[in-house]
Amino acid sequence: MELVSQADLDVLLDFLPCRTPPAWIDEAMDQEEVLLLNHCYLEQCAARTALGLMFRCPDKPDLLSKMSKLAREELRHFEKVHELIIKRGYTYRILKPSRYAGRLNAEVRKKEPGNLVDTLIVGAYIEARSCERFASLAPHVDEELSVFYGSLLKSEARHFKDYLTLADAYAGEPIGDRITWFGKIERAAIESPDEQFRFHSGIPA
Amino acid sequence: MELVSQADLDVLLDFLPCRTPPAWIDEAMDQEEVLLLNHCYLEQCAARTALGLMFRCPDKPDLLSKMSKLAREELRHFEKVHELIIKRGYTYRILKPSRYAGRLNAEVRKKEPGNLVDTLIVGAYIEARSCERFASLAPHVDEELSVFYGSLLKSEARHFKDYLTLADAYAGEPIGDRITWFGKIERAAIESPDEQFRFHSGIPA
Repeated sequence: MELVSQADLDVLLDFLPCRTPPAWIDEAMDQEEVLLLNHCYLEQCAARTALGLMFRCPDKPDLLSKMSKLAREELRHFEKVHELIIKRGYTYRILKPSRYAGRLNAEVRKKEPGNLVDTLIVGAYIEARSCERFASLAPHVDEELSVFYGSLLKSEARHFKDYLTLADAYAGEPIGDRITWFGKIERAAIESPDEQFRFHSGIPA
Repeated sequence: MELVSQADLDVLLDFLPCRTPPAWIDEAMDQEEVLLLNHCYLEQCAARTALGLMFRCPDKPDLLSKMSKLAREELRHFEKVHELIIKRGYTYRILKPSRYAGRLNAEVRKKEPGNLVDTLIVGAYIEARSCERFASLAPHVDEELSVFYGSLLKSEARHFKDYLTLADAYAGEPIGDRITWFGKIERAAIESPDEQFRFHSGIPA
């Protein structure tokens, strides 16, 4: 099993505006099925986002290479979660997503290169938050899930760095202000109440 | 390097309505750049098609598993062709596609389960033809390309079988007539003249 280094995890936790609220962890312990089903779907979505960026940017070799590898890893994770869902007697189905990604994407600038840069920053936040959630869940779940979540951390941490590296490379200007801006939106999404429990939902309402 | 067995190749050649016309091979020898660029793009498209089927059929575990692995393999191939494009001094860009896939997709039935079954049969034809083209090209290209094309055969042959197995599983009736029907369309596409040379184009006009 590949393990994430504490240094890599620290960079990512420093990037995120807040930690997962304990109330979300408590809720997750009661919602194993929703957690697995939604996680499985999000792996598909992550692969689709990466592939979409590849179709959009055929002229950017570094993006093509990083996004293709990222999509392959997300699909591998999808297969693993899907196997776990079947093993635990659940039936995979697509649940209505949380508002998390939608709230971040709503802030993406319309014009290029801002649109691409913001999309990549949003990608970095989603990967970083996913990594942080897996790390937060790992000590509380059963051994099989704990080992599995631990195994995901390393690639999620690398995906976060890849998205951020690409955003910085294509911006042509410092991206600190945009990162701060999206950090505020992200924090609001994570710390505000959500009716429905999901992998990226806020505090259980 | 994984090599395809002659038996697997024979099943696939038996499925296809015709072999690639020698005039297409001759043209391919003069169009290395177009061949590589279009091949690279088609790997992306194959991954997108597989991922699209996954979003469409969350209730079909066998399809999810096969299409996820297929998408990962197509993305790995994309990365390899993309590396080769750069190594040979070409610049990757997306070229207008040939009419091949469009002609097949135009025959897909609109209503379910016919729509899904036909889509899977079209997938089988595209994979089978791609495999046949790589096998046909391998003896004529330089050693690096020949080894690369040889390495693709095994997975393309497996993808062909996966698509056909899934079409058969979800049809609820024999699919021989639909296979024959699409075979006629496919043969017409491969044996009719095409203005533009592409990986799946017909006879050079």
